[in-house]
Amino acid sequence: MPIAKSVRRLEPYVPGEQPKSASVVKLNTNENPYPPSPACAAALASFDIGKLRKYPDPVFLELRKAIARRNKCSVEQVFVGNGSDEILALAAKAFVENDGYIASLDPSYSLYKTIAAIRDVRWEGPDKAKKSALMLWTNPNAPTGTFVDPAEIEKFARNYKGVLIVDEAYADFARANSMRLALSPGNTNTIVMRTFSKSYSLAGLRVGYAVGPASLIEALYKVKDSYNVDAIAQAVALAAYNDQKWMRANAAKIRRTRKAFAASLVKRGWDVMQSESNFVFARPPRGNAAEIFAALKKRGIYVRYFPAPATKDRLRITIGTDEQMKKLLEALDAL
Amino acid sequence: MPIAKSVRRLEPYVPGEQPKSASVVKLNTNENPYPPSPACAAALASFDIGKLRKYPDPVFLELRKAIARRNKCSVEQVFVGNGSDEILALAAKAFVENDGYIASLDPSYSLYKTIAAIRDVRWEGPDKAKKSALMLWTNPNAPTGTFVDPAEIEKFARNYKGVLIVDEAYADFARANSMRLALSPGNTNTIVMRTFSKSYSLAGLRVGYAVGPASLIEALYKVKDSYNVDAIAQAVALAAYNDQKWMRANAAKIRRTRKAFAASLVKRGWDVMQSESNFVFARPPRGNAAEIFAALKKRGIYVRYFPAPATKDRLRITIGTDEQMKKLLEALDAL
Repeated sequence: MPIAKSVRRLEPYVPGEQPKSASVVKLNTNENPYPPSPACAAALASFDIGKLRKYPDPVFLELRKAIARRNKCSVEQVFVGNGSDEILALAAKAFVENDGYIASLDPSYSLYKTIAAIRDVRWEGPDKAKKSALMLWTNPNAPTGTFVDPAEIEKFARNYKGVLIVDEAYADFARANSMRLALSPGNTNTIVMRTFSKSYSLAGLRVGYAVGPASLIEALYKVKDSYNVDAIAQAVALAAYNDQKWMRANAAKIRRTRKAFAASLVKRGWDVMQSESNFVFARPPRGNAAEIFAALKKRGIYVRYFPAPATKDRLRITIGTDEQMKKLLEALDAL
Repeated sequence: MPIAKSVRRLEPYVPGEQPKSASVVKLNTNENPYPPSPACAAALASFDIGKLRKYPDPVFLELRKAIARRNKCSVEQVFVGNGSDEILALAAKAFVENDGYIASLDPSYSLYKTIAAIRDVRWEGPDKAKKSALMLWTNPNAPTGTFVDPAEIEKFARNYKGVLIVDEAYADFARANSMRLALSPGNTNTIVMRTFSKSYSLAGLRVGYAVGPASLIEALYKVKDSYNVDAIAQAVALAAYNDQKWMRANAAKIRRTRKAFAASLVKRGWDVMQSESNFVFARPPRGNAAEIFAALKKRGIYVRYFPAPATKDRLRITIGTDEQMKKLLEALDAL
């Protein structure tokens, strides 16, 4: 049997559905309802296709410089991946020995368990975080949306012997973040990871980045594919990054919609976890989340349902436009 | 020490230089001197940037369908990666146990040794191929350019217990290939890998693909990142793939230039290995390859030099335009 044992028993990660129909109200994969910055369209329009015959910059220096400049750190402290997913897979390789294990919050981003399984090491929940080789701490967390104070993360990091990645995919929707910790001179074990998929509206582009101690960042460079981020993605991500105003305005709109939508659910008897993200994790009055999930889907409204015991009474609902949320509420009222 | 032992001792892969100056005659990384199909520019121009807010198709169905259609196979037999590099890294994970090893020709594409090192398994040369878990057989080979008859590869595959990847990055410049073997009904262990980087002039886009038995292809899907090929790359690669005529015309031009250039070198006393690729591997009359490499670089002409014992007497020279090859020959004559 030429397929490795660990791969034969692997349960592949199941991403949220991507229905083709444009009429679907798609609130199932935490995508941003607003388009990316017009600067991205301009970068694409002015991209010289002839450049594609050459290899891209293997170390994406322009993009790294922009990230380093904004965060007042050196380019050696910045890594860029083909989506945060790639950074997670590389970290599992770079920071975990074959007999080590990966920990995360639980419930959390379900990909983490797949990352551990692909790396062929154990995954453990937060009570075992202390002795893990790699802790993936999502803040705000998914699918709950809950936020912990960066001081709590810092306290954990101080006594931790492994590598801590604070997955801040949703940080632009939250009140604070751990970037200061990642860049503090005494930090030797903490990396902050961000993505262009959520607040920058670029899920289709596959660009994420990591900021932290140069020694850890260097290890990620050593294990990456030689040219992991293509030339167009580098250019479009740079354009998006340089238009912080656009991103911030969309994030602010989403936070406003989140607040109003959460209140509307509460008014209808739902239990809504306090979210600092671009989604809410909410329990319908009768706890019949699976039923509501299916009924909404029939009406062309997609939300996310995770059938595991810890999550089965709730729905994860991405915050879309006010119009989309209104349609969802109307559908709920009609059920 | 939070960095894994195997990563600490890892020697990173060194890609060929990418000088910034446009005046450089760049014959060092086997890039295509001609631009990609105009259909790629059209695909880019008509790409709706608003689509980027959503995740890309995780299984790139349109592109796979096109590849399957042309090769008369099913989409289950086709995998697409973020460059062939990613496919190699995934294959090292999917087909090699921790105590297995990877083999390749020697000399061959130097990345293979890095792939084995990152996977933390041994690399062995062709005499140990028989018992390897994964054999990477580059045909035509690099840096030599030499081509072996697909019948020889088929003979090896028939008695081989591991997974054979025929790396056909340069196949469009050669007289034959192993696609028939990869798609033959009795084949259970052979995958053919292709890239858009060379003949399609899309090195900057990072798209490669693999064709083979569905059971092996499925294993690659299981270990890939959830969204490994971005939406723009999928669209541009599809456009390039659908314009076979453009690719074939450029490949034919390159073969003509190769023939003329090789003859010019031979006339000057060089030993030129018989190439079926978009480069030649050639020994200068006095064997002073390192010296010539440095002298050419000073004149703004970049070729590739590999200082290892087996390759140190030769230069690998990418076939550019007739104009570029003329400049190189003039520089050689002037040295």
